[in-house]
Amino acid sequence: MKGLLNWWENACRSAGPLRFVDIILRGIGQVMFQDNPLSGLFFFIAIGWGSYAADVAQVAIGGLLGIVVATITAWWLRVDRATLGAGLYGFNAYLVGIALPTFLTVSPLLWVYIVLGAMVSVVATLAATNLMKTWGVSALTAPFILVTWLLLLSTNAFSGLLGEALPASGLITPIPAEAASPLAIVDFIEGMLISISQVFVKGDGPAALLILTGLAAGSMAAAGFALTAALISVLVAHLLGAESQIVTAGLVGFNPILTAIALGTVFYRPGPRVMIYALLATVLTVIVQGAMVAVLTPFGIPTLTAAFVLVTWLFLLPAQKLD
Amino acid sequence: MKGLLNWWENACRSAGPLRFVDIILRGIGQVMFQDNPLSGLFFFIAIGWGSYAADVAQVAIGGLLGIVVATITAWWLRVDRATLGAGLYGFNAYLVGIALPTFLTVSPLLWVYIVLGAMVSVVATLAATNLMKTWGVSALTAPFILVTWLLLLSTNAFSGLLGEALPASGLITPIPAEAASPLAIVDFIEGMLISISQVFVKGDGPAALLILTGLAAGSMAAAGFALTAALISVLVAHLLGAESQIVTAGLVGFNPILTAIALGTVFYRPGPRVMIYALLATVLTVIVQGAMVAVLTPFGIPTLTAAFVLVTWLFLLPAQKLD
Amino acid sequence: MKGLLNWWENACRSAGPLRFVDIILRGIGQVMFQDNPLSGLFFFIAIGWGSYAADVAQVAIGGLLGIVVATITAWWLRVDRATLGAGLYGFNAYLVGIALPTFLTVSPLLWVYIVLGAMVSVVATLAATNLMKTWGVSALTAPFILVTWLLLLSTNAFSGLLGEALPASGLITPIPAEAASPLAIVDFIEGMLISISQVFVKGDGPAALLILTGLAAGSMAAAGFALTAALISVLVAHLLGAESQIVTAGLVGFNPILTAIALGTVFYRPGPRVMIYALLATVLTVIVQGAMVAVLTPFGIPTLTAAFVLVTWLFLLPAQKLD
Repeated sequence: MKGLLNWWENACRSAGPLRFVDIILRGIGQVMFQDNPLSGLFFFIAIGWGSYAADVAQVAIGGLLGIVVATITAWWLRVDRATLGAGLYGFNAYLVGIALPTFLTVSPLLWVYIVLGAMVSVVATLAATNLMKTWGVSALTAPFILVTWLLLLSTNAFSGLLGEALPASGLITPIPAEAASPLAIVDFIEGMLISISQVFVKGDGPAALLILTGLAAGSMAAAGFALTAALISVLVAHLLGAESQIVTAGLVGFNPILTAIALGTVFYRPGPRVMIYALLATVLTVIVQGAMVAVLTPFGIPTLTAAFVLVTWLFLLPAQKLD
Repeated sequence: MKGLLNWWENACRSAGPLRFVDIILRGIGQVMFQDNPLSGLFFFIAIGWGSYAADVAQVAIGGLLGIVVATITAWWLRVDRATLGAGLYGFNAYLVGIALPTFLTVSPLLWVYIVLGAMVSVVATLAATNLMKTWGVSALTAPFILVTWLLLLSTNAFSGLLGEALPASGLITPIPAEAASPLAIVDFIEGMLISISQVFVKGDGPAALLILTGLAAGSMAAAGFALTAALISVLVAHLLGAESQIVTAGLVGFNPILTAIALGTVFYRPGPRVMIYALLATVLTVIVQGAMVAVLTPFGIPTLTAAFVLVTWLFLLPAQKLD
Repeated sequence: MKGLLNWWENACRSAGPLRFVDIILRGIGQVMFQDNPLSGLFFFIAIGWGSYAADVAQVAIGGLLGIVVATITAWWLRVDRATLGAGLYGFNAYLVGIALPTFLTVSPLLWVYIVLGAMVSVVATLAATNLMKTWGVSALTAPFILVTWLLLLSTNAFSGLLGEALPASGLITPIPAEAASPLAIVDFIEGMLISISQVFVKGDGPAALLILTGLAAGSMAAAGFALTAALISVLVAHLLGAESQIVTAGLVGFNPILTAIALGTVFYRPGPRVMIYALLATVLTVIVQGAMVAVLTPFGIPTLTAAFVLVTWLFLLPAQKLD
């Protein structure tokens, strides 16, 4: 694997277009914190497969369009070259480009929204990075969430954009007890697996396996934390009496997976104390995801990765030494 | 013009009451970033006319009461003299004093609310300035928005204050397609013009012309950016399928106008790259204004200049060099 | 009194378990800014009595469980010893432990939620302290509010937790004029008194007297500011036409009491200018409490001490010299 990466980096050094492809792939990899073109390639294929399987090619195309536009925008804004090369100005736009066609109906204005959202996501990344560096904390996917929420909310004011797949604005009602029926072991495994693909706003088994492979290619520890977090999330959600359908659709686990990877492998060095700290954060993310669903009900917008960002910021801000 | 201003400044230097009038006028001018008593005078006359024409004298009186109270409060709080002299502790209170009688019914408690709101706006200005200077970013009209939202929301709890002109709290529903009927050219021009007066929460043609004149007296560039932004806003809103009635009432354009003036003439030096950057922000402000209308629907409060503040902060925080 | 405290501190120095009790008592005292075990003891007895009188022992037990878990968590996280010893990592968890059983039905998962909430409150305290120290401002009870809101909101998603005492999610409607009936003098006094116990989410007369005694034991000035703020709140709320039932239940006064103590005795040195500043903040807190009730109506969660935190931050951030 290391030989393959070396060969690729040499190839990129000699050819400009390859370097551009490299930035795009690393950007896709950064959605799960992997500065690794091979991880990005696996994720890209996973989204391509998931979009094809669900007959929504616009999702895969939207993601690609988003990250290409963002990379050019970042270059135009003369951002730091090393950061650009690591794909850190692309992953938010990739998610914007995937999320918009997931919730909005295809129309010419949808593509305009993706281009605009991708451009703004770069400005938002610069803004959030500058804001959060005051406390030495990363912006995570906050730019993606902010831009996507604003664009989705605005469709209520514009008849040119139809949010047919958006949840309806409503009042909050507690789920009925019967919605939390006991899960068979096969449901547990399905919920765990699909959680991994929901990081990219997709519920698809093969896509999840491809993403897990790509994650392992970048970091075995990250893959391990992802699987463990998926297991813990499904268990905790079930014990708390979450809606079974939500659990098996993977909608409970994708935020805790990101929290676990971030705290367990990216921002702290793994160790017994860090494990306990990341475990607490992972369990909390399951609960905060439930809170986010409630708090967004009146607004009719999806939670995206807000629970992950909120909890990870909360657990990074203390800046306590844990080793 | 320059001679006139010199004569006025000499007159102010010799007489205390004139200096006070100067601070008030500059404060009114600062609503559109003009540290210029002549601009302030034009804006003041515009609001006076608009209030008289719509038979709501309380609006013009409320604004004057607000800025006078705020200036005295700022003096009592021993704020920096130069900042006070430039009217920077008055413009938020002027807007509070205009907005409260626009949405609340006249009663003795309304005047108490204006006095209280004006005093608190100074504290909020000091707080927001201190907060945002961490990133070298201005507080803009955030104090006005915060104070006005809190005071308007509180009227739901107090029977002594009636918010009869407030939008009702409701769930969000997308506008119907037929609401976005094609606009005739005269509607376009009306929408553009009225947008300018909506910066001061007023929909009135002659007032808009007076404001534009006052803006040009302060800065020709600012007037140019305002007109261009008004044109772009009405066009973009119409292309996106915004409600025609909202567009012609000038409710789409006032936020983008402020964004364009701020980014194009105040915080960056004009140039080709800044123009593109400000254009992107202006278009985004149209969309964010739509999002703000949606997000505030459950709360039954008006958007005020929140879209302008949000987008301008987003585009100032990166602190990228654009020249 | 001073002799008693000296004897206690000597006793604590020699015995570890006593030191632990001391930290717990100081933590309870810190809810009202008193780094004093005697104040904490009075508050603890007050909550015990209030819980017993209302037949909700789970509230007193929840508070104790919360603060014990938080103290151990803080120790595990190796926080600063002096800060830990002053009870500053405990008071938010004490409030979390009191608030959760007040709004949620008793069940095994409730106790899990209290333990989890207490642990997270320590992380949130570290995070908020680190965040706010950028501007030299204290975190106040923000960690309590954040953690409690998230946990309460999440119960909508989990059938294992029942929020039967939570307000229902709804649209905002202004209170009817007849709800603000004139108050007899006895209602005024009841409203003032109960306000003091509502700081601990409890409406109970004897508890309020015990809390006032504990407060006076820590600081006579704090007790004076609390009583004055309670009087002002009830008067202002009544003049604005607040719902009589809300006023007499003490739900208007507990936030302004905290604002007055914080600004008048903790963060500024008392003096004539500080008195006026604190008075403005106290009156504003009555209004912001009304705004918070409105803004939280769609979410179906209680305001807790949000009005106090918001206004106190607003009045601390200017960092103006007032002596």
